[in-house]
This record gives sequence, C-alpha cells and structure tokens, in this order.
Amino acid sequence: MQVGILGGGQLGRMLALAGYPLGVRCVVYDPSPDACAGEVAPLLCAPYDAADSLERFALGKQVITYEFENVPVETARQLERYAPVRPTPRALELFQDRLLEKQFLQEVGIPTPAFAPVDLDNPAGALEQVGCPCVVKARRGGYDGKGQAVAQTHGDYFRAVAQRGSQPLIAEAFVPFERELSVVGVRGSNGETRVYPLVQNHHHEGILRLSVAPAPNSDALLPTAYDYIQRLTHALGYVGVIALEMFQVGEQLLANEVAPRVHNSGHWTIEGAHTSQFENHLRAILNLPLGSTAARGVSAMVNLIGEVPDIGAILRIEGAHLHLYGKSPRRGRKLGHITLCADDHASLRKRLALLISRASLPVPLDDTRC
Amino acid sequence: MQVGILGGGQLGRMLALAGYPLGVRCVVYDPSPDACAGEVAPLLCAPYDAADSLERFALGKQVITYEFENVPVETARQLERYAPVRPTPRALELFQDRLLEKQFLQEVGIPTPAFAPVDLDNPAGALEQVGCPCVVKARRGGYDGKGQAVAQTHGDYFRAVAQRGSQPLIAEAFVPFERELSVVGVRGSNGETRVYPLVQNHHHEGILRLSVAPAPNSDALLPTAYDYIQRLTHALGYVGVIALEMFQVGEQLLANEVAPRVHNSGHWTIEGAHTSQFENHLRAILNLPLGSTAARGVSAMVNLIGEVPDIGAILRIEGAHLHLYGKSPRRGRKLGHITLCADDHASLRKRLALLISRASLPVPLDDTRC
Repeated sequence: MQVGILGGGQLGRMLALAGYPLGVRCVVYDPSPDACAGEVAPLLCAPYDAADSLERFALGKQVITYEFENVPVETARQLERYAPVRPTPRALELFQDRLLEKQFLQEVGIPTPAFAPVDLDNPAGALEQVGCPCVVKARRGGYDGKGQAVAQTHGDYFRAVAQRGSQPLIAEAFVPFERELSVVGVRGSNGETRVYPLVQNHHHEGILRLSVAPAPNSDALLPTAYDYIQRLTHALGYVGVIALEMFQVGEQLLANEVAPRVHNSGHWTIEGAHTSQFENHLRAILNLPLGSTAARGVSAMVNLIGEVPDIGAILRIEGAHLHLYGKSPRRGRKLGHITLCADDHASLRKRLALLISRASLPVPLDDTRC
Repeated sequence: MQVGILGGGQLGRMLALAGYPLGVRCVVYDPSPDACAGEVAPLLCAPYDAADSLERFALGKQVITYEFENVPVETARQLERYAPVRPTPRALELFQDRLLEKQFLQEVGIPTPAFAPVDLDNPAGALEQVGCPCVVKARRGGYDGKGQAVAQTHGDYFRAVAQRGSQPLIAEAFVPFERELSVVGVRGSNGETRVYPLVQNHHHEGILRLSVAPAPNSDALLPTAYDYIQRLTHALGYVGVIALEMFQVGEQLLANEVAPRVHNSGHWTIEGAHTSQFENHLRAILNLPLGSTAARGVSAMVNLIGEVPDIGAILRIEGAHLHLYGKSPRRGRKLGHITLCADDHASLRKRLALLISRASLPVPLDDTRC
C-alpha cells in the first residue's frame, strides 16, 4: 500500500514512520529539499503547482493525504483526478481561511467567540461587532501565533489593522478563557468516529509548549467535544484525523481553530494512547478499522523549540520518550518533542518538574495544573 | 548520531525505525539487495568479507552493532579498527557455536541441560554422557529449529548423527520441561543492567509462534533470570540487548540458547513495555541512559509465518498492533508479527482467541496458559 503525503515536515515524518509497521509506504511531496520527512521516506521535491510532478507523485498511490493545511487547494483538487484525496480538499479550503473556518463552525452549530471580517475601508465595523479586547488575525497563512495581535484598546485595534497592510483580516472577541483545550478525533471511511481524551494546552509566544493528556477534570466535557467533532466531520464527509482547539469558559467550549490533519497536541498519543493519531489517520484513509483512542495512563508532551537539550539528561527521566525531527536548529523552530508518561497526575507532575528544569521549558509548573 | 547495523532483516528494520525518533540514523549492511531493513534505512549491500565495503560502512559511525549472530566474527573484528562494535565480537564468537555457548554458560555458573560435543569418530561417547532422549544439533548455523533432531532411541541418535555428514555436532539431553521461557535483558556501557519481565514462548515446527508477556506466574523466577543475565553480560563486558531462552523444570531455569542481539521474544516490548528492546539496545550502545523495562499491562506477540492474514480482520481486534516487515511471502518465513495488548490475562485470552482463529495460528489456546 502506498500513500502520498503533501507536506514533508515532522507530521509527514511521523506519518511515514507509523506507516512502515502497517505495510504502508509513504512518499512525501514538498517544495523544500530539506523537508525532514525526507529522511525517513522518499521525497518528491517540487513546487505545489508543478502539474507533471503532481501526476508522477500520484502514480501508484492508493490515497493521497496532507500534513499541512496551507497546501494550495488547487494542488489537492488536481490530485483528485488520479487518486482519492483524504481528508477532502474542501477541508483545506475551509480551514486555511479563518473567516471561512469560523463561518463553517457557526453553520454546523459549534459555538465560537464573536468574530467579524475586517473591512479595510471601514475597520470600525468589525470592532463594533466584536468589541474590545479583541484579536486581529490574518485570514490566511498564520500558524503558531504568527500574524496575530491582541488589541486591548480601540487604538491598539486600528494600529494592528493598519500594520497588516492590505491582507484580508478577521477580528475575534478576546475570550477570558480558563484554559485552552483541544480534541483530536478521527473518522473512518465508514463514518465511524472516535475521539482521543481532551488535552490541555499551554502556549508561550504563540507556540504550543506543553500538552497534558487527558486534561485534568475534563471527563464531563468530552461528550461536547465528541459532538463538535461529529458535526465537523459529518458535514464534510471527512475521512482522517482532525483537531479542534478550544477555549474553556465555565462549562462551555468555544471553538478557536480547526486543523484538518494530525496535530501537535496529539503527539502524546504515540506512547500515551493505545493507537497513535498517526496510525489512526493512516487506518482511516486506507479504509482500515480504527484503533482504540483510549489513553494509557497520563502523559505530558513538551515541544523542543529552537534548541535540543542534553539528550542524556532527558532520557534519564523515568517515562520520558524523545522524538527528534532531524531539523537544523533555528529560533522558534519545532525541533522535536518529549512525551512523559506516568500512571497518574501526581507522578507525572514530579517528572514534569524535572523536565521543565532540564529542558528550560518556559512554562511554570504551577500553570500546568496537572 | 549514526549507527551501523550488520544484518538487514526485520530486527535491523525495527532498530532503524526505533532510531529515528532518537535522532539516530542507522545504516544497514547486508549481502542481500532484498534485505527488508533497506526499505526504512540506507542499505550497503556487499559480502561480509568485502574489506573496502566494510571500511566505507564504518565511516562516520559512532558505533556498529549486529542484528544477526551468524555474521562472521572476522567481519566484526575488522570493523573494530574503525569504530566500537557493540556487543563485543566475542559474544558473536561464543553464541554462534552451540558448544562454545554451552561451555560459556557452564563457566559463568548458569545451569544447562547435560551436553557433549559429538566426536564423529566415536559418537557413542556423547550419547553416554547425555543419555536418551536427546537432541542432536549442528554446532553452527542453525536457527528456528533448523539442523536439529530429537532422538528418542539410540538408533535415532546414530541415524541423526550420520545424516548430518561431517559438520560439527553437539548432543544435548532432552529435558522434560514444563514450559519455555525467555528473558530479554540490556546492559548499558556503565554496567547498569535491566531485564524485561519473563516471557512464555510457544514454538511450532521449531519456529516461535507466540510469546506471552509477562509469562503467567513468573514473578518468582525473575530474580534468577536477572542473575543469569548479569552473569552473562558481566563476564563479557557486554553492552546492548541480550536474550536468553530457557526451559522451566520445576522451579529451576535451564539455559537453552543465548542471542547476543534483540530477539523475537522481545517484540512485544514495542507496545507492551515502557521502552522497546530496540530503543534500549540503541540507548545502551550509544552510552545513553537505559529506559524502563517494565511492562504496560499484558501482551501476546504472534508471529506471522509464511503468509499475512487479512489485515482488516486483525486490526478490528481491540488492542491489536500490526508489524509487517516488507518481505515477500515464502513458506516458513517470518513476514511480520502482531502484538495484542490488554489490561489483564483474562481479557488478553479473549482477544487471543479471536486472533488465533483469524490468523490461523497453529497454537491451541489451551496451550497458551494465559
């Protein structure tokens, strides 16, 4: 079985590694010759609009998928001529644009913070709808907090809009959330849908630093998260893994962002769940039965950003699992992650305290609430 | 970090896959261009006595290891000029010869069944020492039961010896064992030694079919197994994973065979233990701290021999994990394995019953005692 993956970053790399034991050979497509998935799978290096290369890429593939939601929709649609593309290119189209994304969430009945498109000729209109404080975001191309600004005042807002030039923007109400949660779900080609336990996420400078799974005291919220995933995927005939980032406000979950792919907040599933998100994504798109999404004990996933700490010191921590992506260090770059496993939150907390000091993690332990 | 692996079979393949997350790139060396590890790691294809190729292979490697104990000792010794070879080539030398192996076990104080080298000019001598029934084995080159014959009578014995021509043989007393157990251990470069829980093995036609881990009712035997692993590895200054196959007779454990490498009866550790044998082998030979060898629940590992059953039917079994090796089917060939995980032996037994029927496993469930 051969699978084509659009995008050759760490997500493609981990998909390819999950494929080998299943007898699945992945081939990755990426415009960069340095794409780190190329270390573990054949890499076809070409621009996303190179029709000939796309045709060659699709040859012999049972299914094509993507690991990066900023792949041009046209690329995915062109590939559909040769092989099924899963998840549907429609998901790319929706979720690479924050406005279409929010409108879609609204349509399928998933609550979100108030939002409005920013009319550059009349930016006051959006401000009136969402109020202050708010967040100004580029509609397209942003990830890891890039292209976003929090506006506390009207002045902040107009400055943020002006600084962003002529690119399409969206304004969103700033929600005084209690915590950030995400849910990773998977839908099989027969419509069967499963979700992993909720995960609590901690960002720093817009980048995910730490996920704790299952999120403490989140059992009561899981049915709501499952309902959201069902609404999202059912409406799209979606097949594969999908992730939804949310804000918890009281007992309510407000949707923030959808990723139509395997997700950083699901990396803990490699050791922390019975079936990893990577394996389940491949199972789903290949019409294979889904694996159990139940957690094994509790886990904390810590991203390694910009530099890799001393490996020996990390591996000495009981329950620590290292995942390096084979990327060269650069400020703000995700170079790998560590998953800490434990039987319960108390022992996880002890291990996490060690890890935070040894890996210079910018998340105070008290904030982790685990 | 680069590691060279002599031998490119499924063990090399699983080592290479375990290496990527640790930032370890493995290169495999194998005389066959079809070596299945070549699908997941660069393969240097050359004979084991090609000095130039060996030098090229060693270039830039931090350490060299082997996944196959029938690699010529000379090959390993030659590579030592360029890089450390772990485990020591002395282990290859000892454990690829059943007579040297048994003598070494005796020297370090590990009990074995009675054994004697067969003097082809006077085969009656060995028979006198070991008695009947006994097993006649080729001293070298045998695996998966090849080159072995059980002799119930003196006539059987002499026929078995005569049929084996001029190759060196060993005769071993046939032990009326209760069950076959194995222990996989790992010793770090600092001498730290850990063992995985004991595993109960079931063979059919000389090939391992099923391992259950931890072996039921084996806790009391673990200190003895740990002592054996310590004796073996300490005497050799051994670094890496080692496996010891044993017969249980009453409360005694008799050593049968040593494998100076990762072992088929340790495959369950990928999902069933906190750190897999493959990762721990790499950690050991790279001077990294060892990972926990504790089990996570209970596991059963089933080899897929000669043919691969319907994958969908297998993956539908709760707790089933598939590992295919990318090899073309052939009678008697190990093509992959399935690990079944469960919380306890009762639920494992239910899942195993399903697997045995769906994968046409030639091991009656009642024999598994799990």
